[in-house]
Amino acid sequence: MIKIIKTVREMQDYSESLRNSGRKISFVPTMGYFHDGHLDLMREGRKSGDSLIVSIYVNPTQFGPSEDLEKYPRNFDRDRSLAESVGVDVIFFPSNAEMYPKNYQTYITVEEVTKNLCGLSRPGHFRGVATVCAKLFHMVKPHIAIFGKKDFQQLVTIKRMVADLNMDLEIVGMPTTREKDGLAMSSRNVYLSQEERESALCLSRSLKRAKERYEEGERDAGRILESVKKYIENVPFARIDYLKICSTETMNDVKILDGESVLALAVFIGSTRLIDNYVFGEDLNIN
Amino acid sequence: MIKIIKTVREMQDYSESLRNSGRKISFVPTMGYFHDGHLDLMREGRKSGDSLIVSIYVNPTQFGPSEDLEKYPRNFDRDRSLAESVGVDVIFFPSNAEMYPKNYQTYITVEEVTKNLCGLSRPGHFRGVATVCAKLFHMVKPHIAIFGKKDFQQLVTIKRMVADLNMDLEIVGMPTTREKDGLAMSSRNVYLSQEERESALCLSRSLKRAKERYEEGERDAGRILESVKKYIENVPFARIDYLKICSTETMNDVKILDGESVLALAVFIGSTRLIDNYVFGEDLNIN
Repeated sequence: MIKIIKTVREMQDYSESLRNSGRKISFVPTMGYFHDGHLDLMREGRKSGDSLIVSIYVNPTQFGPSEDLEKYPRNFDRDRSLAESVGVDVIFFPSNAEMYPKNYQTYITVEEVTKNLCGLSRPGHFRGVATVCAKLFHMVKPHIAIFGKKDFQQLVTIKRMVADLNMDLEIVGMPTTREKDGLAMSSRNVYLSQEERESALCLSRSLKRAKERYEEGERDAGRILESVKKYIENVPFARIDYLKICSTETMNDVKILDGESVLALAVFIGSTRLIDNYVFGEDLNIN
Repeated sequence: MIKIIKTVREMQDYSESLRNSGRKISFVPTMGYFHDGHLDLMREGRKSGDSLIVSIYVNPTQFGPSEDLEKYPRNFDRDRSLAESVGVDVIFFPSNAEMYPKNYQTYITVEEVTKNLCGLSRPGHFRGVATVCAKLFHMVKPHIAIFGKKDFQQLVTIKRMVADLNMDLEIVGMPTTREKDGLAMSSRNVYLSQEERESALCLSRSLKRAKERYEEGERDAGRILESVKKYIENVPFARIDYLKICSTETMNDVKILDGESVLALAVFIGSTRLIDNYVFGEDLNIN
């Protein structure tokens, strides 16, 4: 029977006693409304720890004022069943009052790697992400925390924060889980109409196109981006928010692909903003 | 024999094994150059934990560009002997390269309680303090950390950060240790000439004066401050940096002393900036 914990105090005491009894805690922080991408992270967590804790919390501080906080999909009962099906031990499900009590005023900023991409499009987003992850790490006290590479800049930011603040835990990034046709799984995919769902394939197809240019020997970032841009501009409902090739270490734009580089893109499909990315040289399981 | 640890990895492994063996860790973070105020914090730490760890680190990120980072007094061998004399188990003595490696970029801000007083006079100071304390807490993994009330706003800031970020440790504030004549102990007192040393008594005497006004029934902050200000203005070498009465919860100025309030002051004695404070209603051991 899966255990549900709702208060910080109970979560900390529970985790402390797990640690004191020598158990390795693996942790998957989520905003809920699980899809197979979340479940893949949990399956990895199940393998890498003795106790698997999943948090479900739609964190308001990482949403901008005009973003989709209110309509973000939620379904706790469904999430509980899915978590149970992959062997999660504990769901940590705190309230807003528990997370941000009156007079709350402390924030963590990771200054450099958050400047580009989503950091530009969503001011304050990564401050919210870094802060809530630090809080969750202090509550859950994991030995290992597992994040998806779909949110690539988020993963880089969390790794940077954990290293800089000397948090004694391991951050693991897992490959993006995709639908059969290539669309990266995202809780936001439910926003898409049937027509938009077809257009949304332009993200994964862009990655595939960039990978092909790279494998043909192209190392000029501008030429790869131009090819992708031309393609997306002809897709109905699609509007590019950003489309860049960046160093995976600094997240700054690169002109030539010499070090490890990532193509990252955010595209509005109608009013739904989707992101995806491809680290050059890696596999991309898209037909 | 006192143990000296210089690397983060060794410190974390050492503390983790202490915790796993059920020992309670008490921690006194310092910038070294110990005086009896530091030793009082250590004596308290000795009583409240099974293992007592003291860090010595002059943290550059809490000094402003025109402040005394370079000339801040240091004497490791003397500090080691003094720590040994009060039963410290471990001195954690990291290098700058260990604390802030290349590409370091993560900072913690406690936004409200740092706006006034030293937060106004020393921009960035509390960001540096909060960040280094969070790092040290993640390295030393204490159950309890002990700070002096002399740095009152620092204590409030650290308590706020620990609560907001859900760090699972207790923060204890200890009364200010004073010289026989009332001067609050500070590593910076060594900067004072003999004449300045006499003038420096104006800080503790100001507190005494404010306490007397309060005990006579005065609750108007402006009148208490005026009385203190007039007194300090006639002291040679003394120049007020700030002199305020604030809520101990928000650190905002108060006009009437109804909730718990603190008189906080920073005074330049020649070129040496000294601070002191008095929480109204508390004891003040000054003759």
